[in-house]
Amino acid sequence: MRIVVLAGGIGGARFLRGLKSAAPDADITVIGNTGDDIHLFGLKVCPDLDTVMYTLGGGINEEQGWGRTDETFRVKEELAAYGVGPEWFGLGDRDFATHIVRTQMLSAGYPLSAVTEALCARWKPGVRLLPMSDDRIETHVAVTEPGSDGEEGERKAIHFQEYWVRLRASVPAHAVVPVGADQAKPAPGVLEAIAAADVVLFPPSNPVVSIGTILAVPGIREAIADAGVPVVGLSPIVGDAPVRGMADKVLAAVGVESTAAAVARHYGSGLLDGWLVDSTDEGAVAEVEAAGIRCRAVPLMMTDTDATAAMVREALALAEEVRA
Amino acid sequence: MRIVVLAGGIGGARFLRGLKSAAPDADITVIGNTGDDIHLFGLKVCPDLDTVMYTLGGGINEEQGWGRTDETFRVKEELAAYGVGPEWFGLGDRDFATHIVRTQMLSAGYPLSAVTEALCARWKPGVRLLPMSDDRIETHVAVTEPGSDGEEGERKAIHFQEYWVRLRASVPAHAVVPVGADQAKPAPGVLEAIAAADVVLFPPSNPVVSIGTILAVPGIREAIADAGVPVVGLSPIVGDAPVRGMADKVLAAVGVESTAAAVARHYGSGLLDGWLVDSTDEGAVAEVEAAGIRCRAVPLMMTDTDATAAMVREALALAEEVRA
Repeated sequence: MRIVVLAGGIGGARFLRGLKSAAPDADITVIGNTGDDIHLFGLKVCPDLDTVMYTLGGGINEEQGWGRTDETFRVKEELAAYGVGPEWFGLGDRDFATHIVRTQMLSAGYPLSAVTEALCARWKPGVRLLPMSDDRIETHVAVTEPGSDGEEGERKAIHFQEYWVRLRASVPAHAVVPVGADQAKPAPGVLEAIAAADVVLFPPSNPVVSIGTILAVPGIREAIADAGVPVVGLSPIVGDAPVRGMADKVLAAVGVESTAAAVARHYGSGLLDGWLVDSTDEGAVAEVEAAGIRCRAVPLMMTDTDATAAMVREALALAEEVRA
Repeated sequence: MRIVVLAGGIGGARFLRGLKSAAPDADITVIGNTGDDIHLFGLKVCPDLDTVMYTLGGGINEEQGWGRTDETFRVKEELAAYGVGPEWFGLGDRDFATHIVRTQMLSAGYPLSAVTEALCARWKPGVRLLPMSDDRIETHVAVTEPGSDGEEGERKAIHFQEYWVRLRASVPAHAVVPVGADQAKPAPGVLEAIAAADVVLFPPSNPVVSIGTILAVPGIREAIADAGVPVVGLSPIVGDAPVRGMADKVLAAVGVESTAAAVARHYGSGLLDGWLVDSTDEGAVAEVEAAGIRCRAVPLMMTDTDATAAMVREALALAEEVRA
């Protein structure tokens, strides 16, 4: 079975671990979000790709869900001693090596997809990990930061990471824009993988800044809609709140309610064939099905790999139901 | 007193520490060798400039004479795990931060001289440290590496660091070429500092790959010869062998004997006014003076800062003698 998964960072990576456990013989292609990529210290950092790679390759810091296990921060401390920041982005020493290799290969002319393949040659994630695009796309968020005197501040666009990591999504987001997406092309292999897929899965990743960004690359949404195979997603919202992260903040920016049903309608029946909501959101099933999307309520908490694998089996079962 | 010093790495840096001790009120400008600069992992590494900066700024690893104190090698280990080398060049985690800041500033368009000034704003070396040039110059060495079968190998040009660090100068050097020097210009401030100097000193640095490279930048040798102030050097050769390092290997490549007198004659009376040889080389004094260079035999071992300061005082005394 050929499975294509659109993945963000931590949630996507944990979902993939469950998928590998539930479907060990599946041929899995992951289309990874690169909208949260950022240039720091002159280096190209791809947080979502790395989180997938480290998680599936056994190098992740399990507690925090991102970054390397057994990490130290000597380089960052030294950069701070030079007065060079930002200090709010936690790049560890082992992690730095990944960004150094990536940046060196990009400078030598390799596209991000080839670089990602080279990095994965070490990590052996057990999936084919493709960036959504080789072109530079950076998600920016329009915010109004409070002025230093407590008064209403200036409205400005900041990098998603600054919004997410530095500000912890603590100020209202007026808009979320994947800058560069409109001019971008899917990376080599992305459209081919979708066309050859038996099923396409949307993990419970952020529908705006993770999966939404991937779908913003011209051609990807259309390829999924036209693939003629079941497309099944899992709600990142449980009981009207994100399971983890701050998805509600960016959903508000695009005018979508933080409910499992509203997210399904946001994707739409033109794209989505099936949708899993958490058991506590049983009441949303009818609303989702009324929107033309087959829906089931099942436990959706990724507490461990077994629980996640059970979610995956539900998603694959729903896909078979759709297919039949 | 305004003193200009041409400096390589470890020897130059230790000499400068003695100079600061012997002449605490002097206005010292250091013209640093950049011929041993190398691009590693996509980063610009300036070993000699950094050795001077770390030594005078209190950050050096005192035992080895280069690199940072209290150093770790996490980044390098991770790079090796990616199969990315070279492994023979010891870049530590704290040291990496310097190269990351430098590379980022160079990429942003700052010249090396401005970058060096910015790095020194942290280290406060107590001297004005100028790279000899903002232009890229890389010393290459023509060698014949033994073939894998023990037979005579191919003659080829390799980077100085590869010759010095990887091969430990263990194969004959046929030629030493500061690639790019002929097209380079002295960095801003270099010629001005020489013109304004009261004395110019050549520490016991490598006469070929350190001081020789600096003198290979068009305009610097001429500016020193034309400055009309005493130019005094200290022999790096004691008793027909280099005090440290492998200067004899590169002296052979340029057809100069490894003796204190031969090095003085190599610089020449058109450039050098005074020359200090070690007490054990008393016999060389007459030969050097016959070449038109005033010479004294004094203890020349930089065993500690006091011994080095004593050497500096001898050099400054010889300069006054020349001036009178």
